[in-house]
Amino acid sequence: MSDREIRVAVAGFGTVGKSVIRLLQEEASRYRDEIGVPLRLVAVLDRSYRRKDLSSIGSGVAVTDSVSEFLETPADIVVELVGGIDPADRIITTGLQQGKAVVTANKLLFAQHARRYFQFAREHNAYLGFEAAVAGGIPILRVLRRALFADRIIRLRGILNGTCNFILSEMGKTGRDFQDVLTEAQSLGYAEADPLLDISGRDAADKLSILGLLAFGKTRPPEQIPTLGIQAISSIDFLYADKLDYTIKLLGMAERNGDDVTLRVSPFLTHRRQPLAAISGALNAVEVTGTKLGSAMFTGRGAGGDPTAVSVVADILNAALWKQESAPFYLQPVFHREAGTESDATDSATAHSTEAYPFFLRFFVKDRTGIIAEVASTLARHDININSLWQEPWSDLANLPFVITIEPTLFSTMQRALAELSQLEFNTIPPLAVPMLNE
Amino acid sequence: MSDREIRVAVAGFGTVGKSVIRLLQEEASRYRDEIGVPLRLVAVLDRSYRRKDLSSIGSGVAVTDSVSEFLETPADIVVELVGGIDPADRIITTGLQQGKAVVTANKLLFAQHARRYFQFAREHNAYLGFEAAVAGGIPILRVLRRALFADRIIRLRGILNGTCNFILSEMGKTGRDFQDVLTEAQSLGYAEADPLLDISGRDAADKLSILGLLAFGKTRPPEQIPTLGIQAISSIDFLYADKLDYTIKLLGMAERNGDDVTLRVSPFLTHRRQPLAAISGALNAVEVTGTKLGSAMFTGRGAGGDPTAVSVVADILNAALWKQESAPFYLQPVFHREAGTESDATDSATAHSTEAYPFFLRFFVKDRTGIIAEVASTLARHDININSLWQEPWSDLANLPFVITIEPTLFSTMQRALAELSQLEFNTIPPLAVPMLNE
Repeated sequence: MSDREIRVAVAGFGTVGKSVIRLLQEEASRYRDEIGVPLRLVAVLDRSYRRKDLSSIGSGVAVTDSVSEFLETPADIVVELVGGIDPADRIITTGLQQGKAVVTANKLLFAQHARRYFQFAREHNAYLGFEAAVAGGIPILRVLRRALFADRIIRLRGILNGTCNFILSEMGKTGRDFQDVLTEAQSLGYAEADPLLDISGRDAADKLSILGLLAFGKTRPPEQIPTLGIQAISSIDFLYADKLDYTIKLLGMAERNGDDVTLRVSPFLTHRRQPLAAISGALNAVEVTGTKLGSAMFTGRGAGGDPTAVSVVADILNAALWKQESAPFYLQPVFHREAGTESDATDSATAHSTEAYPFFLRFFVKDRTGIIAEVASTLARHDININSLWQEPWSDLANLPFVITIEPTLFSTMQRALAELSQLEFNTIPPLAVPMLNE
Repeated sequence: MSDREIRVAVAGFGTVGKSVIRLLQEEASRYRDEIGVPLRLVAVLDRSYRRKDLSSIGSGVAVTDSVSEFLETPADIVVELVGGIDPADRIITTGLQQGKAVVTANKLLFAQHARRYFQFAREHNAYLGFEAAVAGGIPILRVLRRALFADRIIRLRGILNGTCNFILSEMGKTGRDFQDVLTEAQSLGYAEADPLLDISGRDAADKLSILGLLAFGKTRPPEQIPTLGIQAISSIDFLYADKLDYTIKLLGMAERNGDDVTLRVSPFLTHRRQPLAAISGALNAVEVTGTKLGSAMFTGRGAGGDPTAVSVVADILNAALWKQESAPFYLQPVFHREAGTESDATDSATAHSTEAYPFFLRFFVKDRTGIIAEVASTLARHDININSLWQEPWSDLANLPFVITIEPTLFSTMQRALAELSQLEFNTIPPLAVPMLNE
């Protein structure tokens, strides 16, 4: 490594990549003061760079669409912002194996391969920065690994997807229906043309998987986290939630249960006294609870080129400080068991376990006498206690909504009962069970 | 330094000190996993240790009431939790000059001597950790120096004193008066027997001074920050604030104005749509705004033995990682001008400047005709525009409250007008001017 400058190679000249390069230019002199040496952009990889305006890149930078050429350019810090799996994984892996500092915003890859990457980093004494992979505008990973690691973290929960939070906030505010608000969110750029990754909760599960690893040293891969999206939430649910003094949020939850960690992504009826209930619009928020610390909450923009770029550049600056001193990469978490193979990552976290919540159970039915009795007897067979029954005046008796709240019940029990309730012939759509968060 | 263990010496066996020592014991094996070597408590300094239960300290620890003896005990990390000025300053200074890692929770000293301590740390290649000095339960200093430093921070504002926030929250919730709630806060342990440091805003000014330094690289010493406490806030102010859709918070504000930084501690009428308005009880919260990041907010417990101990131990762990690798202390901010003498610290931040706010102006008067006319003409002479006039039904005409809201006006102008308004004979107590925070 040169001690007169630190060479940065950026893969991906999209929204975030452009914003990172702009920040490196605009703040160049301040960054030089902070880290003691200048940062120099040496290479940019972009598959379609020939069709882009490269005037902001400046001269003396090797712009290429060849991954091999990019990886061969001498650099101290490699920044992976191409997203997806290939060539992103190759860029990260090669960089780590070359002992470089690697900075990535790739939550998909990181959620799948965190342990493999940590192992490469350890073996090759490389630096691995991934703050931008979760909640771009909140430095939550650094907070977990550099500050809250002094405490024993017992719970983490958060609003991890800005698109879902925007949609739910709008539904709650305006009384409009899901599809209507989704269309608006797409036109405003808050939702992708293909919104499934967001609204299915899978994006939140990717982030939760990473947060679990950092907070608890153990996690599950995203596909093993029980995940329910927001597609089934209707405007009627907000109407009833509001009467009960709740709102609806898509939350990622991770809780320590003895030596296990329970992970879940689901819409939650969230009581208005909960700090998370107050987070509106396209924001992210993470609440962390420690045995000594109590609860602390971190809120900010979750995505967008500029906030994500700030997290990427923070990693670049920390990597530059690391490069100069060859200090170890001590953001790396200690795993609670040996990280041998990829599959080990999943061993010690559970996804079902003993989670019990009150539930909000919403039906749309073709009205006739005896419905409540059938629902009540089905619940009783599962030893589920009804707490209250709510039915607002409604004109359409062929598609009549009502709500039952349930006393704290195991998730697994509720799911078995729900499967049975779904079979009853009076339902016009399958009933919806949403856990309720009171504290 | 021994490479088989890291020796920790703790000065101060009070609430925080006990909690730190308990945490070091309870989490010993996890900390050893995180940092690679065990931490060992080697010395405890306490003036009155002979009257205390030392059973939690364990054997082989040199417990003393002699500062010299304490400082001579070989240690890698010195933790200063005695508070106050002497011998705290001597412990910090000596530790840094010996090239040790020094961790302190002393906001008073840090607000006064940050630059001197940073200079010693630089000269002697020592580590300086001070996370616990501001908002014990929120790792805000680390966030500023390790994450948000990638962005250009333009504004920082926060609820920095939990006692004041508890009192104001209670006043707002219950309609009770200041003195009444203060007495309750004292009986609950949320306020000191001598609460002046808190309610005068001076404690918040100490913290704001440190935050300004970390966020902007420039600040003012606390005694040069314009500071107004909460003693003059009455229940009637909450009544009117509520009608206007505001609540009242004691805020510390730091804003970049070109090359200057403006600092202020004051009660603010805070609009309910502001995230800071939702922070109730004895919590702290810091909102940071960057040009790229937008706003991010960090909330948690501000004080108390356990949350503060978590921040102290986080510094100990980071110091231990630093010790092992002799990496530089790069949490240290880059100052915007050379740090020569202590007084340089104040040069480049301003306290008055061009801050303009709408104001809430509250009077208690002995009623007669012509009062509004006199107030209005006084304001007009200062070119201050009235926005609205509010007067609720009130029985006591000898002590009648009313409120005028003022269009955005310079702080300095408002203060001059207020001095003049205070001279008017109809006032039963001096009028109160509180700035209003809308965005």
